[in-house]
Amino acid sequence: MQHALLEAQQAFASGEVPIGAVVAREGAVIAAAHNLVESRKDIAAHAEILALQRAAQIVGDWRLENCDMYVTLEPCAMCAQAISYARIRRLYFGAYNPKGGGVDHGARIFTHPTCLHKPEVIGGVEETAAQELLTRFFKDVRQES
Amino acid sequence: MQHALLEAQQAFASGEVPIGAVVAREGAVIAAAHNLVESRKDIAAHAEILALQRAAQIVGDWRLENCDMYVTLEPCAMCAQAISYARIRRLYFGAYNPKGGGVDHGARIFTHPTCLHKPEVIGGVEETAAQELLTRFFKDVRQES
Repeated sequence: MQHALLEAQQAFASGEVPIGAVVAREGAVIAAAHNLVESRKDIAAHAEILALQRAAQIVGDWRLENCDMYVTLEPCAMCAQAISYARIRRLYFGAYNPKGGGVDHGARIFTHPTCLHKPEVIGGVEETAAQELLTRFFKDVRQES
Repeated sequence: MQHALLEAQQAFASGEVPIGAVVAREGAVIAAAHNLVESRKDIAAHAEILALQRAAQIVGDWRLENCDMYVTLEPCAMCAQAISYARIRRLYFGAYNPKGGGVDHGARIFTHPTCLHKPEVIGGVEETAAQELLTRFFKDVRQES
């Protein structure tokens, strides 16, 4: 999660909503990414999807079995479904996201019978650090607008 | 929808699950794509996401206001959330997808109070043609395996 937080800080520094994600296999990080929605003009350039795409290139398969994801914020419905498709074994996330999350809130992607792969989910890991970065980012945005 | 079906046929020809999508603005197609999950080894390379990404590059903004999407199959939860983020005005889809859909089935992405943009949805457009292509594809897959 420390590596994911560093990625989130990089997003913050470039004016993107500060969210970072990494994919790890056997305890080693194999891919890392941060949110790039604004710079890429791409609604799918969330940290989680970018990290899954990079990991798939390294593994040589979109099936990331025996891989875990660490992400600083509860994934949205789009990313949660992507995480399910990629067959991520365990999902660790930092801050909870009642407004935009899709794991413990909103669409609750992993709860539906049609969801074919449900990772083990551990929320609230380094929650304070992840949340502090997001709070600071949105405070800055409000002051600028 | 005819253009989306042509895209689906291209996917079929290259061994990908035959799904096609287009983004249209003022009645003209501005972006088209088909499913490329296997060839790109990318769980996010669904026709809808690729079409949204291409349209965003053309428009110069990830916000595709006043744009409509035509897709041959009911979008999954990942793509439905992406369609919401992109602010697509109307979503026309072909075949219904009880097992994998996320609009009228499963996570029903647009029904949650936390879903900030809900497109108008018109399902079943050219349903027979879209379904026939999918049925033929999976029949071929089963015969080969």
